[in-house]
Amino acid sequence: MDYPEAVARLLQEAGAGLGDEVEVRAADGRVWKGLVMEHHAFSAPHVLTLKLSSGYNVGVAVEGASLRLARKVPARERAPKSTAARDGLPVVSILATGGTIASYVDYRTGAVHPVTSPEELASAVPELAHTASLRTRIVFSMFSEDLQPEHWQRIAREVKAEFDAGAHGVVVTHGTDTMQFTAAALSFFLHDLPGPVVLVGAQRSSDRPSSDASMNLHAAVAVAAGTRLGEVVVVMHGDTSDASCLIHRGTRVRKMHTSRRDAFQSLNALPLGRVDFEANRPVVRLTEPHRHAGKGPVRVDDAMNERVAMIQSYPGLWPDHIESVVLDGVVLVGTGLGHVAERTFPAMEKLQREGKFVVMASQCLSGRVNMNVYSTGRDLQRLGVIPAEDMLPEVAYVKAMWVLAHAKTRDEARRLFLTPMAGEMDERTDVEAFPRPEVAQ
Amino acid sequence: MDYPEAVARLLQEAGAGLGDEVEVRAADGRVWKGLVMEHHAFSAPHVLTLKLSSGYNVGVAVEGASLRLARKVPARERAPKSTAARDGLPVVSILATGGTIASYVDYRTGAVHPVTSPEELASAVPELAHTASLRTRIVFSMFSEDLQPEHWQRIAREVKAEFDAGAHGVVVTHGTDTMQFTAAALSFFLHDLPGPVVLVGAQRSSDRPSSDASMNLHAAVAVAAGTRLGEVVVVMHGDTSDASCLIHRGTRVRKMHTSRRDAFQSLNALPLGRVDFEANRPVVRLTEPHRHAGKGPVRVDDAMNERVAMIQSYPGLWPDHIESVVLDGVVLVGTGLGHVAERTFPAMEKLQREGKFVVMASQCLSGRVNMNVYSTGRDLQRLGVIPAEDMLPEVAYVKAMWVLAHAKTRDEARRLFLTPMAGEMDERTDVEAFPRPEVAQ
Repeated sequence: MDYPEAVARLLQEAGAGLGDEVEVRAADGRVWKGLVMEHHAFSAPHVLTLKLSSGYNVGVAVEGASLRLARKVPARERAPKSTAARDGLPVVSILATGGTIASYVDYRTGAVHPVTSPEELASAVPELAHTASLRTRIVFSMFSEDLQPEHWQRIAREVKAEFDAGAHGVVVTHGTDTMQFTAAALSFFLHDLPGPVVLVGAQRSSDRPSSDASMNLHAAVAVAAGTRLGEVVVVMHGDTSDASCLIHRGTRVRKMHTSRRDAFQSLNALPLGRVDFEANRPVVRLTEPHRHAGKGPVRVDDAMNERVAMIQSYPGLWPDHIESVVLDGVVLVGTGLGHVAERTFPAMEKLQREGKFVVMASQCLSGRVNMNVYSTGRDLQRLGVIPAEDMLPEVAYVKAMWVLAHAKTRDEARRLFLTPMAGEMDERTDVEAFPRPEVAQ
Repeated sequence: MDYPEAVARLLQEAGAGLGDEVEVRAADGRVWKGLVMEHHAFSAPHVLTLKLSSGYNVGVAVEGASLRLARKVPARERAPKSTAARDGLPVVSILATGGTIASYVDYRTGAVHPVTSPEELASAVPELAHTASLRTRIVFSMFSEDLQPEHWQRIAREVKAEFDAGAHGVVVTHGTDTMQFTAAALSFFLHDLPGPVVLVGAQRSSDRPSSDASMNLHAAVAVAAGTRLGEVVVVMHGDTSDASCLIHRGTRVRKMHTSRRDAFQSLNALPLGRVDFEANRPVVRLTEPHRHAGKGPVRVDDAMNERVAMIQSYPGLWPDHIESVVLDGVVLVGTGLGHVAERTFPAMEKLQREGKFVVMASQCLSGRVNMNVYSTGRDLQRLGVIPAEDMLPEVAYVKAMWVLAHAKTRDEARRLFLTPMAGEMDERTDVEAFPRPEVAQ
């Protein structure tokens, strides 16, 4: 695809083109250095995509940006071109797993029922026919609160099958209740993704006037069809208007409201981008660094040790509550910087003696666990408790299950757990990523 | 205290005065009807305080407001005047219980140590001498993660003792880790408050340049000295600037960040007001309906049944985890609108047979539990699970302990639990109260 005018002009003025190394200073002052990438369908017309040396891509708005050519890169050094179909629309597979997005209300009983055929789902959003060539399959039809690791593993294998069969991207429709757990699990399971894996759901079923089902699905398909993201993301309503969706990294997202359409938020990280509806057409903007799709084939690495518990700390938490539920490991969701009451320390000592894997996240949800500030944290570290850094509790829980199935020793498990694998942890956290009430702003 | 000019003018034009019934249309369009109250020290100069028929007070900004006299109220019908000392500064008691606000860093070891004398605490903020006549006492000195119901009970009795000895308001300095639990407990324990009870803490200790300790304490003392709030509130930094603090209702507040100074947020409700620092002087603005101080004496009703557990639902939550930790009751922190996996239903049935008290809150934190939308929720209600409406999980946990110590039957416990007691639940929720990332706004 050729570059849109504004992008082409900026490149031309600097004598740069596809594959060259450039340095761009964006209007917001951020400086990006990387290789000039192709422009993709559904990308906003004013966005230049760069491949960073980290291997991640970023989309930079060209308005107010300046660009400098760093190095002309000969064609032979360049990465091979996108394999997406050029002569038609990109193939997107929709895998349905249940949830409100694939449900309708039976007005006789008031109950919510699942959609029973793939056609029902796709035909609910006729605009999709202009966005992608769709393949739709029902994998299972369950409330997401009932999903187990075995279901995450099944979805991972189905995603691989779709990519192996030539899909450009895969959309997974899913209940919102535990979408964050599935998104994290798929992020750890799926390697060498040749295209985006997009989880999407709805807070209100598609036959209600206020439903977010059709817009969310449209946005999800646009991300799956129109980007070369090589990550697992969640696409959901971005605000109360019907104007945009946000693209959340699968390991940084959490459902933060029981009923609002904009219930999903990225915590401790900015969303990777957004999908704006302009004249009813989805326009995808990727604004944060993200992993670029590889050549595939997808590798699924989904071994899990399910003998991990999650316990939120509260004033009445006694040692025997902890002891009675911990099997091979536990994620403690402590207070503040990562604390539990001193009276639980005997239980911690026992867990350490027995070689259990004990991780500390924070019930604050935002911010980083820091167990060096107070004596409680230092004591807990001496008892073998591993700080989950800036990981969400739910993500730490899924990662702990994955790590325990992949490490032979406790030290190896600790090392694996503290190694970033899928954007789930970072050395620094963007302050803008903290959701705050309007009244305080 | 006389009315400031802007307030006096608005009243005069309508022929209204102290104690009269008026109707005010505020600049934001909201209409308030109530009795004209006195103007208090530290109230903003443009705020008119009304006593609403609900018994709550509200502060209305007079700029752009219109006022109509509804009824002249004869002096004999009026409530007695404030008992606050007129000839000097109001008496405020500071009760120290530990935490970062009463700590300093030992630069030799890097460890945080508690302040050991009341003088140390008060002398850290010399400006307080202009705001109130202070009495300071150390009740205990503990990390808040170690606090138990017995400590909440002790604080409640100490608060009563201070009011009985003539305090206008009481400030409780407290660790931030579990401040939300203590604030909720005091809200349920303390009745007929003759003045404000203000919990305050700090995210960074007072000897650090970025400390919030002194400003938070100053704001807390201003609320305790300068208002006639009859509620338990939390006063903490409102934003990253050093310009204001927010006044949160004790039953609606939660620590939402591990380290930021503006970590405390009201969820599902707007803050009751704010404290702005103007020329380094605290100005208190109460903008939402709040309970007005009574005549006292304080009644402490602090019986608690501590045999209540709190369990957050997660994909690997099995029935035996639930069964092994529930004593007399449990707060389930479910997914979405209030769900747990169907495979835990046998455990729920067992709890119901045994007459256990089972409550459902949501791990989304914001929004309301609604167990009528999906079959999972309806099934759970049939199994005796009680939806916690729009209560925070931590507040539902504290309330469940209080309710189980006060009800003789299960039905009475259910009825008490679903009765609003201290602003902890409401039939409708303000949409502005949902904290959202700046990027989505």
